[in-house]
Amino acid sequence: MALASRVEAALQAAIDRADTPETPPLLAKALRYAVFPGGARVRPMLCLAVAHACGDDQPAMSDAAAAAVELMHCASLVHDDLPCFDNAATRRGKPSVHTMYGEPLALLAGDALIVMAFEGLAAAGASAPLRLPALASAIARGVSAPHGIVAGQAWESEQNPPLELYHQAKTGALFVAATMSGALAAGADAGPWRALGETLGSAYQVADDLLDAVQSGECGKPVGQDALLQRPSAVAELGLKGALARLNGLVEQAVDSVPPCEGAQEMRALVRLTATRLAPKQLARSAA
Amino acid sequence: MALASRVEAALQAAIDRADTPETPPLLAKALRYAVFPGGARVRPMLCLAVAHACGDDQPAMSDAAAAAVELMHCASLVHDDLPCFDNAATRRGKPSVHTMYGEPLALLAGDALIVMAFEGLAAAGASAPLRLPALASAIARGVSAPHGIVAGQAWESEQNPPLELYHQAKTGALFVAATMSGALAAGADAGPWRALGETLGSAYQVADDLLDAVQSGECGKPVGQDALLQRPSAVAELGLKGALARLNGLVEQAVDSVPPCEGAQEMRALVRLTATRLAPKQLARSAA
Repeated sequence: MALASRVEAALQAAIDRADTPETPPLLAKALRYAVFPGGARVRPMLCLAVAHACGDDQPAMSDAAAAAVELMHCASLVHDDLPCFDNAATRRGKPSVHTMYGEPLALLAGDALIVMAFEGLAAAGASAPLRLPALASAIARGVSAPHGIVAGQAWESEQNPPLELYHQAKTGALFVAATMSGALAAGADAGPWRALGETLGSAYQVADDLLDAVQSGECGKPVGQDALLQRPSAVAELGLKGALARLNGLVEQAVDSVPPCEGAQEMRALVRLTATRLAPKQLARSAA
Repeated sequence: MALASRVEAALQAAIDRADTPETPPLLAKALRYAVFPGGARVRPMLCLAVAHACGDDQPAMSDAAAAAVELMHCASLVHDDLPCFDNAATRRGKPSVHTMYGEPLALLAGDALIVMAFEGLAAAGASAPLRLPALASAIARGVSAPHGIVAGQAWESEQNPPLELYHQAKTGALFVAATMSGALAAGADAGPWRALGETLGSAYQVADDLLDAVQSGECGKPVGQDALLQRPSAVAELGLKGALARLNGLVEQAVDSVPPCEGAQEMRALVRLTATRLAPKQLARSAA
């Protein structure tokens, strides 16, 4: 099965497990709405690609890892959109979860998605239990404190957050979880895959800053939020051109960081493909 | 070490892992504030007591299970107190987490506590990986949809929720997770311990309804919320005396449900002790 289809199937399975005749119906709807239709599914695709490059001898573990990474990402979007954070009425061009189902159910849906990520890992782990401790730890580290996406978001409540820690936690951590969990699901050493996750995370952060700054509306959420909320941004620091150059440099660095493995060539192609999707379209055109 | 000290030590270890020089300082404070000082720690005590009754041959696993159950409970309190739910300014006689640290950090602290619960299980699981899948699944089921505490809370967003499902999910599920995870951490069969968790959960729900109704202020949160929010309640259904009789009946049922095991006698004594702590003090006196 193509990687993209595997990602969707793994996410469907996770939502289906939670959506039973005994589930509160609105919660079940909110969970499905939060996950489908998705965005580019960059993180779970990356996770599965790394698992594939490492042999993918336990596909159920790889699928659970990919789903876990994406469920965490979806949870963070649902919670970040809430009024006490971005207060975003829309997401990916449709009403955000709390706009659609109200704040209580949006909050609960985010909580449930976090738990469902681990629930899927635990279920798949029954057939490869020796891999589960490191795999679940890698996912947890990508979300938790001190270095996960929750900590990244929490830096925005501090005066003068340390920029590198902030960006690495807010965006990089889940990319690192994606690459490392892909390797761990396939029984490989995760260490060599850390750099790829870190570098792609940095690239993604710069791309997001660019997207926010050009106010293109491409990502379907209200734009210009960084400047509005005085959040640190690569564009504020380097200007549009400088930020674009930095993005291109990071992509090359990511390509170079792919460790030697059977699927290295394929992996490098995927990194480049992902990267072309990152840059805001009109900037990519103007730079071409 | 006495069970109560083990619970506190396991929770300290969990918070200490998250609270490093690289953690956003306010998040670190909010996490500690959400967990210490605790309430009666009924659920993790129950978890450790079951583990003890089952041999407790991997104490680190038992400690991680107990900490996980309590971290989930603390997360649910932090999120339930938020303005979009109970809007509770106080909890256990002190300002609630969002009153103290603001809504964004309260929301993030709850998210982090959920992840930290699984992070601790994964870390302990490295030394007994064969037990981890079922253990992590039991904890997840106690929180997730369809039957966990998140689903329980979500029933409050539905018209006419099915009362038994609602109560079992809102309160019972985490008691079931406590007893079953205690058994699983000790390598025992969890099935025989389900009834104890279910019955104690029901007892706890009735006790909570009583406490809310008598507006005693004993639990340190604003009272009379059930009537105010028109939530289903055992007191509304049975009256004060009827609810108290139901509580006593459930406690006897819980005592009888302790399965045959080496520590059964001790376990029954603990169930009775826990139960005496449940009933609102002035009701217990008036019924004596």
